[in-house]
Amino acid sequence: MNMSMSNRYDIAIVGTGPAGLSAAINAKIRNKNIILFGTRNLSNKVMKAPKVNNYLGLPKVTGEELKDTFLSHIDDMNIKITEERINNIYAMGKYFNLMANDKVYEASTVILATGVEFRAPLKGELEYLGRGVGYCATCDAPLYRGKKVTVIGYNKESIEETNFISEIVSEVNFVPMIKGDLNLKDNINIIKSRPISIEGDRKVKKLVLDDGEIDTDGVFLLKDSIAPGQLVPGLEMEDQYIKVNRKMETNIKGLYAAGDIIGKPYQYIKSAGEGQVAALNAVSYLDELKNK
Amino acid sequence: MNMSMSNRYDIAIVGTGPAGLSAAINAKIRNKNIILFGTRNLSNKVMKAPKVNNYLGLPKVTGEELKDTFLSHIDDMNIKITEERINNIYAMGKYFNLMANDKVYEASTVILATGVEFRAPLKGELEYLGRGVGYCATCDAPLYRGKKVTVIGYNKESIEETNFISEIVSEVNFVPMIKGDLNLKDNINIIKSRPISIEGDRKVKKLVLDDGEIDTDGVFLLKDSIAPGQLVPGLEMEDQYIKVNRKMETNIKGLYAAGDIIGKPYQYIKSAGEGQVAALNAVSYLDELKNK
Ligand SMILES: Cc1cc2nc3c(=O)[nH]c(=O)nc-3n(C[C@H](O)[C@H](O)[C@H](O)COP(=O)(O)OP(=O)(O)OC[C@H]3O[C@@H](n4cnc5c(N)ncnc54)[C@H](O)[C@@H]3O)c2cc1C
Ligand SMILES: Cc1cc2nc3c(=O)[nH]c(=O)nc-3n(C[C@H](O)[C@H](O)[C@H](O)COP(=O)(O)OP(=O)(O)OC[C@H]3O[C@@H](n4cnc5c(N)ncnc54)[C@H](O)[C@@H]3O)c2cc1C
Repeated sequence: MNMSMSNRYDIAIVGTGPAGLSAAINAKIRNKNIILFGTRNLSNKVMKAPKVNNYLGLPKVTGEELKDTFLSHIDDMNIKITEERINNIYAMGKYFNLMANDKVYEASTVILATGVEFRAPLKGELEYLGRGVGYCATCDAPLYRGKKVTVIGYNKESIEETNFISEIVSEVNFVPMIKGDLNLKDNINIIKSRPISIEGDRKVKKLVLDDGEIDTDGVFLLKDSIAPGQLVPGLEMEDQYIKVNRKMETNIKGLYAAGDIIGKPYQYIKSAGEGQVAALNAVSYLDELKNK
Repeated sequence: MNMSMSNRYDIAIVGTGPAGLSAAINAKIRNKNIILFGTRNLSNKVMKAPKVNNYLGLPKVTGEELKDTFLSHIDDMNIKITEERINNIYAMGKYFNLMANDKVYEASTVILATGVEFRAPLKGELEYLGRGVGYCATCDAPLYRGKKVTVIGYNKESIEETNFISEIVSEVNFVPMIKGDLNLKDNINIIKSRPISIEGDRKVKKLVLDDGEIDTDGVFLLKDSIAPGQLVPGLEMEDQYIKVNRKMETNIKGLYAAGDIIGKPYQYIKSAGEGQVAALNAVSYLDELKNK
């Protein structure tokens, strides 16, 4: 382990789909001090696949089986998953700051493997981004002290986040895009309608639903993936994908990307292969830095 | 199955390492009529690996186990391996001709997944290529009728090929680079020395060994991989690798490449991922052709 810089990791890997996991095992084999952000569920896109037959070496598996196989591989290698969402990544020159809800992690290199969200943005979502629309409720909650916010929750984690901000702002509406129990605090209004668009003038004023509308000062869309350009300021994109070269290098030195997030086809073993390439090139780059 | 053009395959895949196998399963899933060239041993580079731990989903396997796992995947999908070496591939416009020892195969698209040979060329090998040096004894044997040829055999298959040409040329020397039984005909001279260089003037005149030299009109180096530029005339290279874009397209329309042959790192899952990308893009291209 290379822990020379106290808490600075060699490689931070964001995402626990096949791209992130493959990056992690390859970096670990090369004895790098890594941190892997994601969940022990790995990825909805792995877990929920009905039948997978195109991953060479693992014929006829369900997504659930694939998940277990992947998990046992990383457990076997003592790779820990740090269950945090990364909300922002800042390039600091010779290292990166990764912002989780209430912590900052430091790493010399970063591999982005956050996948893609297939959902099209809501009408008005991109237009009002940063002017009332946000993706990280816990980060931006202080801006809405004494105000009304509306959360559109696309995953389970959004419930906890909504409970947290209800302690800070004056009124919270929650529009669930998920099924199952909503373990929300009593002071949160649950609105079971379909969101249509976000409207306002200079700033957000309301959320329009299929059966009405609600006045609100802010709309948070809490979903699994954040647009990569949003996650890392300055990151160069090509269409909606992160632009990389054959080494999986982005335009930011020390920052790599792999998997669905760099382009089609959206597939497991393509993602795993790219995660490997990203990790091995990050390792070479770290070795160069050390020899300078 | 799309057998509209009698014997023309949709996709010919050359090589049975992870890149070729992954291409095959992905093309087959898309219902393409494929032919896969290689051996049931798959690849020396898979079979001979002592311990593999970096193939996500298959922790701690030996190369032998990896081979069996891959084989059972393709058997499971009824993918047949055609045990032939491809010696030349010619782009004919809307299809390709693939030349095996005594047969010609036709395919609308080709995926090259032939791996890399790590052996450095012999001194003089590239200089005399086509002027006495060759890689396909059975193809070129007729040129040496009544002459002396020397075969440097890097694999088992070279024995059979040498027996075959001994019926055509007047004298054959065989320099074995392999261990084990050499089932050679009686009229073939076995020379157990190490080859150093190939010399001549306009054409090859002799093979220099570590303990002497032999006069010869031709030298055949029979090894697992043929230089890709040799295999496909007109193929664009970048350093010693086939040049591809992110879709695994080469400079020749309909011709794709994947695996070690397109560049480092040399790794299984990287190769498998690229084989998948090549296959899926070949499928899209075929669909385009059909809709024209
Ligand atoms: C129903 C379904 C079936 C499929 N079937 C197949 C199939 O049979 N074969 C096949 O090859 N492909 C299949 N796919 C496609 C495949 O799932 C994807 O191509 C693959 O999962 C992409 O891997 P990835 O690692 O790039 O991203 P993902 O698997 O999407 O993983 C990304 C991970 O990053 C995490 N993440 C995102 N942002 C952050 C953040 N800011 N902080 C921390 N973590 C974050 C996400 O929660 C997720 O865990 C299927 C997809 C679906 C939806
Ligand atoms: C000893 C050893 C250990 C390794 N360990 C690991 C490891 O632990 N992890 C890892 O990720 N990688 C490892 N590698 C690297 C890995 O083996 C390669 O990266 C991988 O096999 C490349 O796959 P490929 O499909 O591109 O080519 P290959 O596996 O080289 O397969 C190419 C195939 O094409 C066939 N072929 C070539 N030319 C023709 C032709 N003209 N006609 C028909 N068939 C042809 C060959 O016979 C061969 O079967 C190891 C390599 C070696 C040598």
